[in-house]
Amino acid sequence: MIRNFGQGKIRTSNILKNSLSNADLFESYGADACECPSSHKKFYFVFSQSRPLDLIELEQLLQSVGWSRRPTRRVKKALENSLLKVGLWQHDSKFPRLIGFARCTGDGILQATVWDVAIHPVYQGLGLGKELMAYLLKSLKALDIERVVLFADPGVVSFYKNQGWELEPKGDRCAFWYAN
Amino acid sequence: MIRNFGQGKIRTSNILKNSLSNADLFESYGADACECPSSHKKFYFVFSQSRPLDLIELEQLLQSVGWSRRPTRRVKKALENSLLKVGLWQHDSKFPRLIGFARCTGDGILQATVWDVAIHPVYQGLGLGKELMAYLLKSLKALDIERVVLFADPGVVSFYKNQGWELEPKGDRCAFWYAN
Repeated sequence: MIRNFGQGKIRTSNILKNSLSNADLFESYGADACECPSSHKKFYFVFSQSRPLDLIELEQLLQSVGWSRRPTRRVKKALENSLLKVGLWQHDSKFPRLIGFARCTGDGILQATVWDVAIHPVYQGLGLGKELMAYLLKSLKALDIERVVLFADPGVVSFYKNQGWELEPKGDRCAFWYAN
Repeated sequence: MIRNFGQGKIRTSNILKNSLSNADLFESYGADACECPSSHKKFYFVFSQSRPLDLIELEQLLQSVGWSRRPTRRVKKALENSLLKVGLWQHDSKFPRLIGFARCTGDGILQATVWDVAIHPVYQGLGLGKELMAYLLKSLKALDIERVVLFADPGVVSFYKNQGWELEPKGDRCAFWYAN
């Protein structure tokens, strides 16, 4: 599920806009890296599916948007079995910071389900969430996926609706079953 | 998504109730096979996750409950990448018939999504759909999955609600994106 997108302030950084070369990009984030457009005048934001994720940093990000803590061992397995994992990084030549994330599960061709979409609260309001979803759908299109579904908190329903997501088509309802 | 469960009549069969041994069960349906309880006095119904599925027979089953036709190549890939596939068979020593099906995608530990739940219309009204879902959840529990989700047509919402599924907890909405 996707938490509400609040507002916040961004810390200062030692990176100036327009200083990031493709060489820097690929070296730090992998050959699949690409810049995430943003309205921020100073910082670079980068999508990567291959830069390794620090599980503690990821859990801190997910908790910052309100997820409850999950055992690292279980998160590790879930990531290993995910169809797609996208990290969104605030570029820093020494210490890139994971400020956004999303992942998908699915059968790789007919269906995909989006989980754990998060933009760190202090980086919200820059259009990064919209760019993250656009990048995710572009990546799923490349896999020729037919249909993508997600579960949205009431607070972000309009966010997805505005991006062309269809809410409960034909009156479909989502039903949840919990082990505990 | 899950289609409405209608009513129908069952064809005659050359199998009499109480004639199925464990040896028959395992030989025909694999070591993971187990009988599916039903209110029918005459026929045996069997769950199997390992008995190979005939893709044409599966598509005929899914079309019988109203799914639109899908290319066999894509269905094959989707099944290969599914976390769990359950076939429900009307036992016949010579020609077992696939009369029910369900599959799950997921990350194998945190989340699972249920797809393609179907009971052939002429076998509906015997409690097989309820047994199929109970079997599916039991299998997912064995994998230690935390949460299972599915999408229900309006006609079967009460079917899931009556089995303890929670509809859109905390006002969550499901959103769909289609490639075409």
